[in-house]
Amino acid sequence: MNHYPASLKQLIDNLARLPGIGRKSAERLALHILKAPHREADLLAGSIAEVKRRVRLCRRCFALSESDHCPICANTARDQSRICVVEKPADMAAIETSGGYSGTYHILQGALSPMDDIGPDDLRIAELLNRVKAEGPAEVILATGTNVEGEATAAYIAEKLHLLSVRVTRIASGVPMGGDLKYVDQVTLKRAMETRHDT
Amino acid sequence: MNHYPASLKQLIDNLARLPGIGRKSAERLALHILKAPHREADLLAGSIAEVKRRVRLCRRCFALSESDHCPICANTARDQSRICVVEKPADMAAIETSGGYSGTYHILQGALSPMDDIGPDDLRIAELLNRVKAEGPAEVILATGTNVEGEATAAYIAEKLHLLSVRVTRIASGVPMGGDLKYVDQVTLKRAMETRHDT
Repeated sequence: MNHYPASLKQLIDNLARLPGIGRKSAERLALHILKAPHREADLLAGSIAEVKRRVRLCRRCFALSESDHCPICANTARDQSRICVVEKPADMAAIETSGGYSGTYHILQGALSPMDDIGPDDLRIAELLNRVKAEGPAEVILATGTNVEGEATAAYIAEKLHLLSVRVTRIASGVPMGGDLKYVDQVTLKRAMETRHDT
Repeated sequence: MNHYPASLKQLIDNLARLPGIGRKSAERLALHILKAPHREADLLAGSIAEVKRRVRLCRRCFALSESDHCPICANTARDQSRICVVEKPADMAAIETSGGYSGTYHILQGALSPMDDIGPDDLRIAELLNRVKAEGPAEVILATGTNVEGEATAAYIAEKLHLLSVRVTRIASGVPMGGDLKYVDQVTLKRAMETRHDT
């Protein structure tokens, strides 16, 4: 690594700072960028600058957006009376890809995590409560993760929302589709048994 | 992926074009860049442009360099009478890191590969022969890979160099250090046995 020119070492350092990219991968990527056509490198550098310049948060739901209101909030064909609460933009993208939901979202920008010093004020919870008061939705679906942080966040928000007498639901957890029961962990299986339903 | 803003999708597309980065990794990297401080993103975009602008090939050995002659060719403390021939800049970096060599290099920029339509004229072989004629080195060490392409390249260059009556050597191949014999492949083991030496 010490035997590369300074600017190449700089690029390797900067790439190695990205999550999941080690020194070896960063070296491989940097050498690829160096060999790639100028146009390809320009496109990559340009799109990094562009994404930082253009993307902001939707004023209503805090989804990633290039305008004040994201396409979903601006879309009158979507069920505007339902709010699905998720932790991160990637969670919203996953639900959209599943095609099983046609309402709006509210992106908290994280989950409660005392270990990481993330409390209710660090998330968009106050904005959610204000939105529910202002809009009076038919249902708020809590779709935070099913890990400790996600469950705690859902419980905290559910408590606050019950005071506003809105219908609050939680996405189902259970055996994944295509899953083999013997490979499913005990907690999931216990939960799936508890929340069994008539067919 | 269709549920992200256009500029974010563009960045994901450009990142996914890098080697070893799939759509999922590209999405994760793009979201990280979006969340990262402006300074970090600027540094990354800047260093991509910088590396394309600054890095060129050393006029003598074709190593990556920011000036006409790379630091190794310009270093009088190195043994300028020895030339180690490698395929790629990363090979040179690996040998430098090993600390077992103090001469100069010649980077071919690839290996002979009829399958990929890479012939002698696509590599810096003519430049190597001219350099040997002009400089009259004491030794040329062929350190191309030990795969089919590397072996063919070494054989081709050795034949040409023998006409110039220069000492030509090939790096040893055999059992890797720390290797367990039972895990070493047959070809390597056969080669190691053939090239055994007195201790």
